[in-house]
Amino acid sequence: MPVYFEDYEIGSIERFGHYPVTREEVIEFASKYDPQPFHLDDEAAAQNPVFGRIAASGWHTAAMAMRMLVDHAKEQGHLSMGSPGLDEMRWLKPVYPGDTLSMEVEVIDKSAPRTRPAIGFVKFRTIVYNQRGEAVMRQVASNIQPRRTPGAPA
Amino acid sequence: MPVYFEDYEIGSIERFGHYPVTREEVIEFASKYDPQPFHLDDEAAAQNPVFGRIAASGWHTAAMAMRMLVDHAKEQGHLSMGSPGLDEMRWLKPVYPGDTLSMEVEVIDKSAPRTRPAIGFVKFRTIVYNQRGEAVMRQVASNIQPRRTPGAPA
Repeated sequence: MPVYFEDYEIGSIERFGHYPVTREEVIEFASKYDPQPFHLDDEAAAQNPVFGRIAASGWHTAAMAMRMLVDHAKEQGHLSMGSPGLDEMRWLKPVYPGDTLSMEVEVIDKSAPRTRPAIGFVKFRTIVYNQRGEAVMRQVASNIQPRRTPGAPA
Repeated sequence: MPVYFEDYEIGSIERFGHYPVTREEVIEFASKYDPQPFHLDDEAAAQNPVFGRIAASGWHTAAMAMRMLVDHAKEQGHLSMGSPGLDEMRWLKPVYPGDTLSMEVEVIDKSAPRTRPAIGFVKFRTIVYNQRGEAVMRQVASNIQPRRTPGAPA
């Protein structure tokens, strides 16, 4: 069943996702988009006081989280029309090859603009966890969702 | 010459980067990390009121921006030790295959924590432009930079 703007409830929480992080993918992503030595080279990573060993680019972690979100949205019938942006993105702990990531997503706000009756904005607090239950990344993201009944009072 | 925390001047602006966006790369990134129809399929993109045609995932735009930042940092001798996070990330306009991206980065704040004398935090306002000079993405990012003289008054 398709999920519309009207169906999101503030305070509701979903947990989902299972993304195994591989060394091959960490290095492939970093080679293309974030070729800093601590994402590519064991020795350089060992010298970084935070990482200690090769760690995923923060942008790679964000991309893996997006993949979990999109897969979950498809399974659930969520109808996102895109995102205007996000806030409070924090990389809390390194993500290492061998980790397995999962997600927790809470609906924290929603608003239906009068001037655009076909859509609404839903705000989510998103946390990415590793297999030890440690939060490795969080963000607050906005999403554009279609309204079931365009123009009806929100 | 290496660039340390002490060398960043609030208000200074740099412009750089030249990233041609290809259809092949847009589809490859979206297939892996953001497989929403409007990033993969011409017909689905035509039905999206914002995109109109296949557009890059916002995470892909962020990744391409990161590549321009890292390349520039290497050329200039910047010594980033990673980033704790970012704020106010906004996708302002679609990024299409055929676009060429560039960057503008302004130093907007810096702080040297007393408890961690080897590092400082530098805050940047980053804007990504397309070849028509339109801002397509912006963000405020924090970066950890080594201090030239650990423990000296900031």
